[in-house]
Amino acid sequence: MIILGIDPGFSITGYGIMRKEKQKIEIIDYGAVRFSSKNPLEVRIGQFYDTFNKKIITEQVTLIALETPFLGKNAQNFLKLGYLRGIIYLLADQHKLELAEFAPRQVKQAITGSGAAQKEQVARVIMRLFRGIEMPKTLDVTDALAVTLCGAWKSASKLR
Amino acid sequence: MIILGIDPGFSITGYGIMRKEKQKIEIIDYGAVRFSSKNPLEVRIGQFYDTFNKKIITEQVTLIALETPFLGKNAQNFLKLGYLRGIIYLLADQHKLELAEFAPRQVKQAITGSGAAQKEQVARVIMRLFRGIEMPKTLDVTDALAVTLCGAWKSASKLR
Repeated sequence: MIILGIDPGFSITGYGIMRKEKQKIEIIDYGAVRFSSKNPLEVRIGQFYDTFNKKIITEQVTLIALETPFLGKNAQNFLKLGYLRGIIYLLADQHKLELAEFAPRQVKQAITGSGAAQKEQVARVIMRLFRGIEMPKTLDVTDALAVTLCGAWKSASKLR
Repeated sequence: MIILGIDPGFSITGYGIMRKEKQKIEIIDYGAVRFSSKNPLEVRIGQFYDTFNKKIITEQVTLIALETPFLGKNAQNFLKLGYLRGIIYLLADQHKLELAEFAPRQVKQAITGSGAAQKEQVARVIMRLFRGIEMPKTLDVTDALAVTLCGAWKSASKLR
């Protein structure tokens, strides 16, 4: 089982890829992808598609994990988030992947034990669970790793 | 110049395809596509992509015309509209098509002379401009033809 977790965003998209074998979960890739705002929207959406289409093929991803979106202060940002989520759904369909969605509170609860935890707390737990990985420069990456782990846990009983 | 106008929606998507040669604009295809709500979201998004990917290739589309979205009463519908718009942007990028977006008021104004016109009035003008086409069963189709025509007019001086 190979899980791709994505925290989509136009300025930064965080992602994590984990392999789950029996009870063992390991990170095989993670990072942040940036899309230059100098490019028109459709070009950035094309880059987003190409980036994750390649990763899905290369790493033989079987499940995509996502957070459910919530309407923030800015309706336009909410709509633009929808563009990227639409691409993720398309990739799930094209590659016949399972999709697992988790509410943000559910992810925080699963990782830290508290649904109201801050992103920094989520990051600390992730770094403790996966010793040996470098601390990502942005919390978008630890957020993505958190949702990836939820995807892995979905059918696992324990982390190890 | 071949213009594809789309009025995206999960229950019904209206579309129109027009060819513009010199001052002459003619309809080469139009209709409504329905996506069964029995299928998961990602399957319907995949069907939306496949449908318009094929039409773009078959009809050698060069421009996509769209209405700009506005936030209605239902934020979830707004987000879901974003999914389909994301797919349209991806298709524009993959096929290197021009994209033209028009505010709903702008479309009504261009077609009927009034930015506050009802959908029925838009439909009547469209049916008068293109005699010989059958009256579509849904206003989503005449809406799509209206935005297609705006795309065609964008660089044309007159309808004929």
